[in-house]
Order: sequence, then C-alpha cells, then structure tokens
Amino acid sequence: MWQQWLGELEQGNVKALARSISLVENSAEGYEKMLEALPYNATARVIGITGPPGAGKSTLVDALIGQFIAHGKKVAVLCVDPSSPFNLGAVLGDRIRMSNWYTHPNVYIRSLATRGSMGGLNPRIIEITELVKAAGYDYVIVETVGVGQSEIEIAGLADTTVVVMVPEGGDEIQTMKAGLMEIADIFVVNKSDRPEADAFVKNLRLMLAPAFHSHREVPIVKTIGSTTSGIDELYNAIEQHSEETGHSLRKSWLITERVFQLVQQHRMNNIDKEGMFNAIRSSLNDKVNFNLYRFAKNYF
Amino acid sequence: MWQQWLGELEQGNVKALARSISLVENSAEGYEKMLEALPYNATARVIGITGPPGAGKSTLVDALIGQFIAHGKKVAVLCVDPSSPFNLGAVLGDRIRMSNWYTHPNVYIRSLATRGSMGGLNPRIIEITELVKAAGYDYVIVETVGVGQSEIEIAGLADTTVVVMVPEGGDEIQTMKAGLMEIADIFVVNKSDRPEADAFVKNLRLMLAPAFHSHREVPIVKTIGSTTSGIDELYNAIEQHSEETGHSLRKSWLITERVFQLVQQHRMNNIDKEGMFNAIRSSLNDKVNFNLYRFAKNYF
Repeated sequence: MWQQWLGELEQGNVKALARSISLVENSAEGYEKMLEALPYNATARVIGITGPPGAGKSTLVDALIGQFIAHGKKVAVLCVDPSSPFNLGAVLGDRIRMSNWYTHPNVYIRSLATRGSMGGLNPRIIEITELVKAAGYDYVIVETVGVGQSEIEIAGLADTTVVVMVPEGGDEIQTMKAGLMEIADIFVVNKSDRPEADAFVKNLRLMLAPAFHSHREVPIVKTIGSTTSGIDELYNAIEQHSEETGHSLRKSWLITERVFQLVQQHRMNNIDKEGMFNAIRSSLNDKVNFNLYRFAKNYF
Repeated sequence: MWQQWLGELEQGNVKALARSISLVENSAEGYEKMLEALPYNATARVIGITGPPGAGKSTLVDALIGQFIAHGKKVAVLCVDPSSPFNLGAVLGDRIRMSNWYTHPNVYIRSLATRGSMGGLNPRIIEITELVKAAGYDYVIVETVGVGQSEIEIAGLADTTVVVMVPEGGDEIQTMKAGLMEIADIFVVNKSDRPEADAFVKNLRLMLAPAFHSHREVPIVKTIGSTTSGIDELYNAIEQHSEETGHSLRKSWLITERVFQLVQQHRMNNIDKEGMFNAIRSSLNDKVNFNLYRFAKNYF
C-alpha cells in the first residue's frame, strides 16, 4: 500500500500525502519501511513560524501563503499550534475564516496533534516534514506556539525561524522569553499599526545589539497581518536568509536526538515487560534466590 | 579486587562493605561483576523509615538501633535523607550527637547521596541494600524523607515501611500526603508527649478506618524519641509485621523498573553519540542525501 502512496506522493498527489502522514502518525503497518524508502528532497525549505499566543501567527501565515502562491511556489503548512485556526482543534468559525487556501492546488495544510503539553511539537514532526518535502513543495511552513521546549525543537527543524511578536509596553519586551530571542533568524513585529510599535521595535533592536557581533544582523520586519502590509518584505527576508545559510548545529542535534530515540525504541521493543514482572514476582514469592544483576543479564 | 572484598564482606568485614558500596556508587571497574556474584541473603529484613522533615526520624532510628542491639541483632542504617544527622550532608554538631553508634561492632551506618532532588532515593539503592544484606545484617534500616516520589520507592524497597509523624493541629492531618498513608505498614506518632497527641492519634485512626477492610489493621505506635518511650512497642510491631508478610507487589514493580533500566543502559552503551552527531552534521553540511530511518537502521 505505502509503495503506491509513495509513488503518488512524489507526483504531488495530495491524497497520497495525507494518507502517508496518517500512516506515520499512527505507526501503521509499513510506516518504517516507507520512511526508509523516502528520498531526501534538499530543495524544500522549512520555515518555522513561532511566537506567543495572540501574536497573529495564523493571519500572518495566511498572508504568507498568498505571497508564495503569487511567486509561483508550492507551499505546505504543518500546524502544531493548538491555538491556531489552521489547527483542527480550533473553533469552527476560525477555521472557516482560513478556508480559501484549503482547496488551492499549490497549497497543502495539515494540523498535527501536539505531544499533549502545550507548545510541544508532534513527536513525529521530523518524519512528517520529510514526507512533505518528498511531495515536492518549495516551502514547508511549520506553525508552533512559542511556549516551553518547542522553541529549541522548531529552531532545529526549520531552515529559517521567524519569531512573531506584537508591540507591548516597554517592560513586556524585557520579560520576553530569552529562548525566543536566541532562535530568531527573522523578527516580525505584527500589528505594527499600534501606537507603541515604533518604541517596541527600537527596544527590540537595542536588545539585539549584542548579536551585531555575530556574522549577521537579525532583520526586524513590521507587518499588519490583517492588511498584508509588510508581507512582501517578510517574503524577501525569508528568501535572503535561505540563500545565506546552510544547516544549523541545532538541526544536527535535533536529528541526533531523534535517531538515538529511534534506536532505543528499536533495541528495547522485544522485551516483554509484563513477563519480566511475572518472573520477578514469582521468584520473590517462592523465596528463590533473586539477584538483580544476574537476572538483568539474561536480557543484555 | 572486588572478589577479595566480597569474601571479606560475607565474613562481616565493615571496611570491605564500605569499599564495595563505594565501588557500586561510583560505577568503578568490576562493580557489575560483583553485583552479579552477590548471594541473596533472604534473612535480612529491610525497614523503611520515612516521614516529613522534622518528625524526629533520626532520633527514632537512633533509639531503634539500641533496641535491635539489646536483642542481639546486627543492624545497618542507609541514610538517604539529606536532612538527617546520620547523613554526611548534615551539620557537624548533629553528627557528633549520633556518634555513639558509629563505632559499635554490630552497627553499620552509611549516608548516601540522593539523586539530586530532595526525597529521591539513591539510584543504586536496591544494589547497595543487597550488598548490605550479603554482609549478614539482621536488619537494614533505610531512612528517607517522605517527600516526592520516594514514598513509592521506599515502599518497594522495604519489607516493612514505618511512617513517622508528629502531632499537629487537627487540620494538618487532612492535608497529609495521601502517598504516606498508603504505604505505611506501621505508623509512629512521635513526640507523643505533646498535648494534641491523643486527638491526633484518634483522627489518624479515623482516617485509616477504610483500611480496616483490608487483611490487617495498621498499628499506630506512640513514641517519645528523646526518652525512647514506646521504642520497645515499635520493635515488637516491626517483628510482628515481619512474621506476617511476604514480599509486596510494589517490590516486584520496583525491581522490574530497575531491571528494565539496566537492560536499556546496557543495550545502548555501545553507541558513540558524538560520532553519530558528527556523521549527521557532516551529511547535512555536505548536502548528502540524509534519510532519518535509513541512518537509524545502522544502529538497530
């Protein structure tokens, strides 16, 4: 089954892609073989969009899709933000608001479950991103909420990480999570028609000053999501960053951690833990000489 | 080296025991072979003493040692309570207060580091307890502070779990951690010369009422640690519980978890994670086709 889907997926068949993602999400029969058979499409760029809830990430993604389409690009959106209207977990009204892209032939949108904890990425996000890349999209946008550990993961997964914020009082920016500052390749100050926007951008630039010593300056793009103002500038910033940079150290670490996890799962999956428990229980009950290390050694 | 220590340890040599515990604590060369060679001495009983900080556990343990000695028993104390004067982490004055037992030929006292988190047991506590058992002690007292996850561990490790409390206002007992209620084979109400002691015991008995339906009633022993009042009664309660019961379900689970952990460590210990990282990093840098599952499979 997956062999056929893989063929169709590489032709850009959206149904085959959707089925393949479900196969992988559900660990269904053949998913490991499919992932093994997957080609690595180096041309697709992964754009991470993150930021606090309420920053207008989804409206921005919506506008960005339009920009990519206008440039003749194919774009996929993976949404692991539970508060996003792209996500199936959101209220119906919000989802309808975004629906104009759902049927566009050059757009694929998929919402993914989080690991349970708010802000955590889907445990199979690396694999699912590879599936989408194989389907021939030019850009894969991964939308996450910038809370908890997801920042580090998104920065590992994405080739370009965009951190979206809204102008707040001058003190707010000081308490902004240091994690978000660190991972941004591009800053977006959304809702920049607010009166405090200019002061906010100025403060942000000041905070980023130490980063001036690094090899590149982090661009700050002012947008107004509702009017798509600034979206072309954001598009250009993404394009420019894509040309400048290769793969990050974080990406290597993220993949190493995932490989290690996979190997661990595989090496331990033939242990019948219940049988182990029963053997230990009856040894103890029968007062048989029980030796922890001698027992464990049988499984080494 | 350990072969010699093991022989001496089984003869009751305290220096060999101390060295062997350090060997295991530090994962020094040969520690796994030593643990494998260890006999299982079914005659030693493990007594867990736990309770909130300030309940007077150490004074009680001190008095209990005296009681065991008076009955001609050999007793070892493993202290994983960072607030205990038995523990090397405590202030010097406290330790000197306990020192009359340190030199007694039938007493062995050892403080162990916790896992870092307050209340956590030493990760090798099962193995260290087995070492002490092999040295021919009649009783192994494990003193822990009853906070966090340690309750479940101590209840798995100990053959008899003693929960120590002090009389508090009537409301205090209601907020007592349910975990401590569940694991107690024997309750001790220490400092029972306080005026609120009788009301406290009455409330405690009321709370334990549902347990009356189980096969045995949980005894409540009133002690005054500073005068050793009630210590003979506690000794008898421990003796009686030891005769009544076998190994608990919790013990089987605790050992199963530990075996599983050991197997996992062993099966993963030949992975050079840094080498793995370097291979991934150079693949990504060289834009070599990288496939997560194909790569992971090399380590399966």
